[in-house]
Amino acid sequence: MNIILLSGGSGKRLWPLSNDVRSKQFIKLFKDENGEYESMVQRVYRQINTADANAKITIATSKSQTSAIKNQLGEKVSICVEPCRRDTFPAIVLSAAYLHDEMGVHEDEAVVVCPVDPYVDNTYYEAISILKELAEAGTAKLTLLGIEPTYPSEKYGYIIPESDENISDVREFKEKPDAKTAEKYLAQNALWNAGIFAFKLGYLLKKAHSMIEFDDYRDLFAKYGTLTKISFDYAVAEKEPSIQVLRYRGDWKDVGTWNMMAEVMADATKGWTVLDETCENTNVVNELNIPILCMGCKDLVVAASGDGILVSDKERSGYMKPFVETIETEARYAEKSWGSYTVIDAEPGSMTVKLSMKAGEHLSYHMHNYREEVWTVVSGKGKAVVDGMEQMLRTGDVIMIAAGCKHTVEALSDLDIIEVQLGDEISISDKIKFPLD
Amino acid sequence: MNIILLSGGSGKRLWPLSNDVRSKQFIKLFKDENGEYESMVQRVYRQINTADANAKITIATSKSQTSAIKNQLGEKVSICVEPCRRDTFPAIVLSAAYLHDEMGVHEDEAVVVCPVDPYVDNTYYEAISILKELAEAGTAKLTLLGIEPTYPSEKYGYIIPESDENISDVREFKEKPDAKTAEKYLAQNALWNAGIFAFKLGYLLKKAHSMIEFDDYRDLFAKYGTLTKISFDYAVAEKEPSIQVLRYRGDWKDVGTWNMMAEVMADATKGWTVLDETCENTNVVNELNIPILCMGCKDLVVAASGDGILVSDKERSGYMKPFVETIETEARYAEKSWGSYTVIDAEPGSMTVKLSMKAGEHLSYHMHNYREEVWTVVSGKGKAVVDGMEQMLRTGDVIMIAAGCKHTVEALSDLDIIEVQLGDEISISDKIKFPLD
Repeated sequence: MNIILLSGGSGKRLWPLSNDVRSKQFIKLFKDENGEYESMVQRVYRQINTADANAKITIATSKSQTSAIKNQLGEKVSICVEPCRRDTFPAIVLSAAYLHDEMGVHEDEAVVVCPVDPYVDNTYYEAISILKELAEAGTAKLTLLGIEPTYPSEKYGYIIPESDENISDVREFKEKPDAKTAEKYLAQNALWNAGIFAFKLGYLLKKAHSMIEFDDYRDLFAKYGTLTKISFDYAVAEKEPSIQVLRYRGDWKDVGTWNMMAEVMADATKGWTVLDETCENTNVVNELNIPILCMGCKDLVVAASGDGILVSDKERSGYMKPFVETIETEARYAEKSWGSYTVIDAEPGSMTVKLSMKAGEHLSYHMHNYREEVWTVVSGKGKAVVDGMEQMLRTGDVIMIAAGCKHTVEALSDLDIIEVQLGDEISISDKIKFPLD
Repeated sequence: MNIILLSGGSGKRLWPLSNDVRSKQFIKLFKDENGEYESMVQRVYRQINTADANAKITIATSKSQTSAIKNQLGEKVSICVEPCRRDTFPAIVLSAAYLHDEMGVHEDEAVVVCPVDPYVDNTYYEAISILKELAEAGTAKLTLLGIEPTYPSEKYGYIIPESDENISDVREFKEKPDAKTAEKYLAQNALWNAGIFAFKLGYLLKKAHSMIEFDDYRDLFAKYGTLTKISFDYAVAEKEPSIQVLRYRGDWKDVGTWNMMAEVMADATKGWTVLDETCENTNVVNELNIPILCMGCKDLVVAASGDGILVSDKERSGYMKPFVETIETEARYAEKSWGSYTVIDAEPGSMTVKLSMKAGEHLSYHMHNYREEVWTVVSGKGKAVVDGMEQMLRTGDVIMIAAGCKHTVEALSDLDIIEVQLGDEISISDKIKFPLD
């Protein structure tokens, strides 16, 4: 089974745990069968592999997410990187071209496109296997998964089927309705559109070539920035006459807000938290290394990271986006392929950062034009290279890296470094990479 | 007017802003006439000086508070340091001996003892001036201030007066009662005991010599650790037959809990906070350099410092003490005579601290046996001395201080240093001070 997982958006609705560099699908609030914390992308990846051990999964995502994806799923994961964001139709076409031209997938093979963010049980991926079989059988050009609605939601698009059978032709699509209209849809056996599409690879490529002029994957990649932003629903699904839908009755939760996340997170609290006995229906996630004490809290979600602290009534938490946008901080925590990066102090002219590197990982060989850095090793061993000179690093070692000086470090064990950045123009964009000879 | 201000206790009830080294009276949540933030001790000191520009104030406190007091009130403030905590009777006797033997206050002069923590308006200190006059007139041995109760509280001791006159003899004292008993007291014109005592200095010294064997202030200081812990109320007030009380009808608030603090703090929020329009009756104090976003919060107090984060229903906040005791962190923020000290990272084997020094201040000349330190200057200028060698420090300079190496720094301007401490046994007790030649 070929699966394209769409790993999108930066998600401000799970602030402060999600930010511009850490999308919600990387937050580890779930648990796997061994009781280890896992993120949404890890959970989905595991669930697909459980449903089909031979599934070939390609993750369609932006460059900014590739470190986190490799970090969480391993170096071998197949990633189709979008050069820039262009909505779902271009993203799916790029992935389809990637499967065909780079991975050698045949045009007759079925492909299933899935978003990465629903919280579902394993039966969902069994339904997706059926979707793939339906696509292969070719009774319709496009096969969708429709979620049986639990209430007349205004948040989702609706699929109106011809019948209430498990598999039905699609009569029409409806955009997000108001509650009253949604009730009418429910009376017509309507289904929520889960954003899942199954088709034969050839079908989509033909469709794509009819709408976009391109030769192959590499050509499309090169001109990706010139493509029109358009969703797959709008570009393809709503215009296609031959569509069928598979009805899914299992659990399905969209964990795009703290209110929903609170319902499905593995434990009511994570991190260093103390709740008194009068707290009710309160979830706390604490990524800071200081304690959170909650007393008499009712229906609250409290979340703290290096980016900030949220204290919100659960119902209200869905409305946070405009407020988060006013806050506009640079991300203070970032998951990297080599470990993590946490800003621990910032003032005009300096920024102090803790680098926590995993054994065996290394930074790129790079330099900064406008800042010097002082590294103090607080634990572990490493090998630094500074302007071509190798130097072993152990706990307590200090190195000073002048502006314009190329440098890197390889972690020989887990390695923690306190990095003091000094300069009037400290910016993540002040970084020039070099090959390491 | 001679005033002894009792600046006591470490106060866990305003956690995380109060801790073992920062008592609640040093938290700056009030404002002076110029709109500058001020602490309770600053406010009380200012109010006394407003009521009587010639007031001679001596602060009775422990060694751990002297830095914060000098920092907030200036170097010239008169402080009587208790070598250890021995409750209010020994503390008042030590201060009385200090006034007599070190400050030359005559035995016929009146002394007024005040706690440092009530939130009051200026009329309170006018009442204290009257108290002093009553003590000087000598119509009673001991003169108290009684607060006219606003409700039958179970939190205070009660004074039962002979009459409802403004000035009355005291019939008896009552310990903290239950609410029903408190109502009976109110029917007898009872007053809350504000913990204020006025007397002639000679009266108290005579009383003290009858109960404690000591020659003078220095002798008492030397044997202070051997004294029995006992409150002034119990040791003196409840046994004295000649007591009068002055009735005080003005504002008087005991800001010992967040619930009360929220009522009197100058602004509903302090620090980097964003509240949505659905928050009601919510106070937020944020000392961290990351934002706090509150949405849909009702009747909450949110307080964040380097020590931790509190999210509490206002009513419940009075019950935090046992929970704070379970948290048991070392204080991560300390106000020092020279500026402030903030732990920004801690892991086994290292601790990273930000030192923010005020221009003109200096650290003691000291060394550590079990840790080395790496200082990186992130802003300002200073003069370091390391094992007797002077060295100028500017932004970007780094010095390494080995274990056993004596060191200090003087801030030539406001000076910020990131200090990485390295060692297996990092402890504030690992510090040996030396005179600087």
